Amino acid sequence: MKVRNEVRQLAVKAHNASLELALASSKVKNDVLKTVAIEIRKGRKTILSANRKDVACAQKMKLSMSMIDRLTLNEARIKDMAAAVEDVIDLKDPIGQVVREWKRPNGLLIQRVVVPLGVIVIIYESRPNVTSECASLCLKSGNSVILRGGREAFHSNSVISSIYQMALRKHRLSPNAVSLVKTPDRRVIDELIQLEDLVNLVIPRGGEALIRRVSQKSRVPVIKHYKGICHVYVDQAADMDMAEKIVINAKTQRPGVCNAMETLLVHKRIASQFLPRIGSSLIARRCELRGDEETRKWIPGIERATENDWRTEYLDLVLSIRVVKNIQEAIHHIQKYGSAHTDSIVTKDMRSADEFIKSVDSSSVMVNASTRFADGNQYGFGAEIGISTDKVHARGPMGLEGLTSYKYVVRGRGQVRT
Amino acid sequence: MKVRNEVRQLAVKAHNASLELALASSKVKNDVLKTVAIEIRKGRKTILSANRKDVACAQKMKLSMSMIDRLTLNEARIKDMAAAVEDVIDLKDPIGQVVREWKRPNGLLIQRVVVPLGVIVIIYESRPNVTSECASLCLKSGNSVILRGGREAFHSNSVISSIYQMALRKHRLSPNAVSLVKTPDRRVIDELIQLEDLVNLVIPRGGEALIRRVSQKSRVPVIKHYKGICHVYVDQAADMDMAEKIVINAKTQRPGVCNAMETLLVHKRIASQFLPRIGSSLIARRCELRGDEETRKWIPGIERATENDWRTEYLDLVLSIRVVKNIQEAIHHIQKYGSAHTDSIVTKDMRSADEFIKSVDSSSVMVNASTRFADGNQYGFGAEIGISTDKVHARGPMGLEGLTSYKYVVRGRGQVRT
Repeated sequence: MKVRNEVRQLAVKAHNASLELALASSKVKNDVLKTVAIEIRKGRKTILSANRKDVACAQKMKLSMSMIDRLTLNEARIKDMAAAVEDVIDLKDPIGQVVREWKRPNGLLIQRVVVPLGVIVIIYESRPNVTSECASLCLKSGNSVILRGGREAFHSNSVISSIYQMALRKHRLSPNAVSLVKTPDRRVIDELIQLEDLVNLVIPRGGEALIRRVSQKSRVPVIKHYKGICHVYVDQAADMDMAEKIVINAKTQRPGVCNAMETLLVHKRIASQFLPRIGSSLIARRCELRGDEETRKWIPGIERATENDWRTEYLDLVLSIRVVKNIQEAIHHIQKYGSAHTDSIVTKDMRSADEFIKSVDSSSVMVNASTRFADGNQYGFGAEIGISTDKVHARGPMGLEGLTSYKYVVRGRGQVRT
Repeated sequence: MKVRNEVRQLAVKAHNASLELALASSKVKNDVLKTVAIEIRKGRKTILSANRKDVACAQKMKLSMSMIDRLTLNEARIKDMAAAVEDVIDLKDPIGQVVREWKRPNGLLIQRVVVPLGVIVIIYESRPNVTSECASLCLKSGNSVILRGGREAFHSNSVISSIYQMALRKHRLSPNAVSLVKTPDRRVIDELIQLEDLVNLVIPRGGEALIRRVSQKSRVPVIKHYKGICHVYVDQAADMDMAEKIVINAKTQRPGVCNAMETLLVHKRIASQFLPRIGSSLIARRCELRGDEETRKWIPGIERATENDWRTEYLDLVLSIRVVKNIQEAIHHIQKYGSAHTDSIVTKDMRSADEFIKSVDSSSVMVNASTRFADGNQYGFGAEIGISTDKVHARGPMGLEGLTSYKYVVRGRGQVRT
């Protein structure tokens, strides 16, 4: 009951701040962000010392090396953090834009005007830079944000969020527009995502278990992707060199991220030609391969892929490979096992490309490009707050626009309905 | 368990049909709709006889007169139903439209392409025309629809939905693209809205209790408005004649609908002038008035409005009235008691209009126009599948566009990420 009241208080404050922030001009919002960038640079010693506490804790708690690496800040990462805030200043403010305007026969002028969503809850782990990335994007789009970082980054996140609060105060905006949940108590999230009258959107970023828990319990809309089981399909009409380059890149350039390839599908007509070369290339890069029967004919000695492999997001140097008898079988495989994140076809045949584009129901569908491009920055959005594999509201990489809604503004001269 | 399996089967069939329908050309979809319009006209005797069964049942069950009126079909209403289908044929097909296209410095061509949502569940009551309206809009936008009408309209809805299935079959599309839930068992809805892997959107239309139940239990995104507590604020700078016309229209033209006004706010400077005249106008139209203290000075003899009145959607010839000391108080009242549906200001002062537009966070905000215009047809959308007071996905009156999502299509020449 105490938790419930505290959480409600927090959300009410964020909501009230959002009403004010919704009316703030682009100039004021950018001034806040300028102050933030300056103060991040100025405060780097304080940030680093807070971060050292977190890292020491994480080492004591024996967190994984990769987790500690993501947690650790240094001068370069702090510079990047400040520069990222400046990038957000340069983004066009979506709020107040009239995206459409038309006149009705009765003379009513109707406009569709972009407005902020209101209050956004973001749940994430590890990287303290995410705190600043999310706060800057929410602020720019006129939204209050309630941040719930991982407890391992508690000290770092506290310092970073307090820089935002100070900057808001300096420019006479409510510091409640950026708040950080400080208790590790999980009930706080559980309560927050019940508050459909105060919270407008929840974005859980992290492991699949966390995301499933949030989306199962939430009464507030959730933008999410559970996982990225991305496919590359090498068509019979593929350019072999291009296919090799794309497959290697999609799998090995950064295997731990959601847009890395997890399953390779190869047309049977080119299996004998393509599989031996891609097999040795991947194995040379220490990639573990698991194949269906047909694949194992051409890359001998690799493990057999089970039904489970087709459904697994390895996030590691592991790849499952299947030979398909035609493009339809590739599409069916993706429909059945894919996660609607990103899938790519390599082909010179534009009819195959079109069929793939139309039939593969994923948030990003690519032709002759690496799945690794499915990313807000790569798409030119300037920033990314998350990736959605849902179909409602926002789909695919989501930038500032995904943090907005709209209202209809109707202007008349006394019209009434007959 | 049996219900669960049956519902899942139904949803799987709808999902499979949606994959096919997503690929159908505009011509094929329009051909299906043409057949539907013809068969509705041809089949009017069958429809009427099914409807008579429903009406007889409803009379036996002693449903309210207004409910029976909404349930009853006649030749004219069936003609309207067929004409409405033809209107949908004339709407532009949104599917496949490239809404944005840009090239990245690395040569990647990125397109944002409109796609259907997939499977849509619509829950509604009474009016059998809704069956055809929803089916035609979902079909045109390439979505499968699972319809759950009220049990009172069972026979009528069965005939109408079977016309759609026949038309789909005739044009070699799966009849499962339009299905009607035939059992009155409530567990069917409860199960359907758990199927987040198969159902993409739920639109509950009906009483607030139904909508709350659905949105509380649903794991599928819900588009909804709980209620319409619409306000008209008559500013000190209002044209009195215009204000009277708008207030009368917003309250009395059709009081039983969600965009009718429920609360009138009047600036105190004009209360002595405006309230007596609007009071007698409304009373002459048999409207019951409830006012705050100040209002009752100028319209004597009316009941006192309680806190509860400000929160009530009367859907009837009842109006609550409050005198406010300035525009800010009007805005605060709307922020506190409104339902984010539609609110209107009557004023000649464009600064007041702008303040109202910016500060009132409702899906439709109007200046010098009746709230009754908040409607997809009145906005020129050609049709309306519902009205949303949420901020995510669709807001305000929602036409074909609200039934779509998008995907990113990325075309390269072998680009990889470095």
